[in-house]
Amino acid sequence: MRTAHDIYKIPKHEFEERIARVKETMSSRNLDALLVFGTEQESHNVRYLSDYWGLFESSAVLIPLESEPILVIGPESLNYARSTSTVPDIRRVLVFRESSEPDYPGTQLDNFEDIFREMSRGKKIRRLGIVGLGFMPFPVYTEIKRGLGDAELIDASEIILNMKMIKSQNEIKLLKRASKIAEIGLRAVIENIEPGMTELQVVGIALKPMYEAGMEHEAHLMYVLAGAHSTHAVGRASHRVLRKGEIIQLGVPVKIGGYCASIQRPIVLGYLPPKIKDFLEIGLVRENLAISLMKEGTEIREVAIKTNEFLKKKGYERYFLYGPAHGIGLGENEHPFVESNSTGTFKENMTFNICAYLGDNKIGQRWEDAVRITRGGNPPEEFSNYKRKIVVIK
Amino acid sequence: MRTAHDIYKIPKHEFEERIARVKETMSSRNLDALLVFGTEQESHNVRYLSDYWGLFESSAVLIPLESEPILVIGPESLNYARSTSTVPDIRRVLVFRESSEPDYPGTQLDNFEDIFREMSRGKKIRRLGIVGLGFMPFPVYTEIKRGLGDAELIDASEIILNMKMIKSQNEIKLLKRASKIAEIGLRAVIENIEPGMTELQVVGIALKPMYEAGMEHEAHLMYVLAGAHSTHAVGRASHRVLRKGEIIQLGVPVKIGGYCASIQRPIVLGYLPPKIKDFLEIGLVRENLAISLMKEGTEIREVAIKTNEFLKKKGYERYFLYGPAHGIGLGENEHPFVESNSTGTFKENMTFNICAYLGDNKIGQRWEDAVRITRGGNPPEEFSNYKRKIVVIK
Repeated sequence: MRTAHDIYKIPKHEFEERIARVKETMSSRNLDALLVFGTEQESHNVRYLSDYWGLFESSAVLIPLESEPILVIGPESLNYARSTSTVPDIRRVLVFRESSEPDYPGTQLDNFEDIFREMSRGKKIRRLGIVGLGFMPFPVYTEIKRGLGDAELIDASEIILNMKMIKSQNEIKLLKRASKIAEIGLRAVIENIEPGMTELQVVGIALKPMYEAGMEHEAHLMYVLAGAHSTHAVGRASHRVLRKGEIIQLGVPVKIGGYCASIQRPIVLGYLPPKIKDFLEIGLVRENLAISLMKEGTEIREVAIKTNEFLKKKGYERYFLYGPAHGIGLGENEHPFVESNSTGTFKENMTFNICAYLGDNKIGQRWEDAVRITRGGNPPEEFSNYKRKIVVIK
Repeated sequence: MRTAHDIYKIPKHEFEERIARVKETMSSRNLDALLVFGTEQESHNVRYLSDYWGLFESSAVLIPLESEPILVIGPESLNYARSTSTVPDIRRVLVFRESSEPDYPGTQLDNFEDIFREMSRGKKIRRLGIVGLGFMPFPVYTEIKRGLGDAELIDASEIILNMKMIKSQNEIKLLKRASKIAEIGLRAVIENIEPGMTELQVVGIALKPMYEAGMEHEAHLMYVLAGAHSTHAVGRASHRVLRKGEIIQLGVPVKIGGYCASIQRPIVLGYLPPKIKDFLEIGLVRENLAISLMKEGTEIREVAIKTNEFLKKKGYERYFLYGPAHGIGLGENEHPFVESNSTGTFKENMTFNICAYLGDNKIGQRWEDAVRITRGGNPPEEFSNYKRKIVVIK
């Protein structure tokens, strides 16, 4: 039976298919098991294999080559994990507890040494691949290493990274839904924003209708960055009051079923000073240029090189911080990145956020929209038809 | 000049005083420098010393014993850090980049080896204390170690942990403001919640007026956990539809100036089944009992032991997962924990959340309220006067 829930989810069989594909790659890389690690913040890989998104506590999907996967969680997450994980075998370990390090006196927990021993059924684990080493806390690494004895640990993050780059039909559906919900938030802001509000008040205006429409959380902190704050390539909305005639970087982030959208627009209240108009037009043209170049078969770096050349030609090179686009999926920011040193070509069903920040220490802007690479040199499919234009709210 | 901003902030001089106190402890522990690490999710210690709360990227406050502190951030955070950090000397390192590991071709960055060398002014660093090792990613640890050569690395987390346990007047002010804003969210939910809504829709109802009132972010994910989901000791609001006659765990989390509040109540829509009434009354009595026992000079573990005895006497022992309270401050969950194995006594201006989760695999509940330990055996001061009673919404 399908329920209302299901339209926000990847179906269970797809998770099982992903694990089967992981095992094929493990086999070809001669790995006995793969440990895919995640935290509340860095949840994408664990969610990719189990639909589980922990909070406070860490988690891992452990995939033995020759038996069923195991979800490893912290002490407090058992009932929650049972209700959300597509991996039914669940174990709890102390080292995945929350960062304040409670003790849980009297609570019976597993440990990695026992889990590894049981999992390998008496056979020795010789090579364990690890995904997520980049954000694995030092004590977790130490405990896993101890549990494995003299087995070899191998950074195997690219196994999942490569799989995630090409999206399935279900993934594309969720990415589109997320973009549609981001439009709802953006519209609510455009309709209600006024000089005198604080940046943070605008956040609340966007979030309410987006939760109403099915958002499960922000894909990242919502950006409302005004005036000098518009220079923040990353930044938090603050108690700063909005004024007329300044750039407001608006970024509306949505996550559903784990999949992310973020539509970003610079807007201005009251009137548009000519200097700001010139600056925003450069960003807008760069954004459109990047999108027009993203075609199956094209070299990825070409889009970065050509948009960088455009900036140089217009004299805006010093506003550059990073390339014009990055992958989008379970991570709001994932491979492939579109940079002048990127390798590879665009492939069908890769999905990108064109995310073109430009700024110095006085003004900044970002435009952001999601696209899917289509077949045979056609233009990419945009996930939102929200207009790309400079919005001035009188 | 004081601005509207300032009522949400710890004043700058207090950060400088904290750093001066850290240096005293470093000196007594024979440390040449202290590196206090943080992430977006585990931000409390870095914020305690600099007011800086990074996003996407990691950060650290580096305190040399004999010179000025340095804020270390990732490649994209410079303008944002300049506008929020009380530590003016700011450096960027690649290893603090976001987890998707962009390359930043062409961007000039620092590295720990150079920072350490410059910081020590030719003198050798022999002992570096580290705060936040528990959530420091393995590659960050490796890079710091490499930068230090043969210096000794020492886990020094308890330096900051001990300082944070007793709150200043400014910290108490912010904790109270956060509780007041949580009340606003709770009231909005009580007024608007209805059967047929999803858990996630209720989240949006609470967040809007809390951002309106000055919240800077959720202190943790807001809990709206209904029916079987009420058993989730930690959990995420979902697309599940609310029904009459079931427990809804409501947890309203607020952060301002970094300081956290979380008021939690179990509520029921429509009617209160007798079995649920009995269960919730046990939780309520336990919550009140815990609060009444938290007095200056009392042993911390006594509160856990006595509330556990109460549960045992009433036959509810199997619903126990963890002790009845934990510290509250920059972390929504921090030391001291109130557990049967806790050491030490309650001291004036310690602040706690009484946070009494009870559950099995069918029903669960949590009550949560913040208090400050007062002088001389008086009852604790509650930060909210929001009624503790079983709410049934007809």
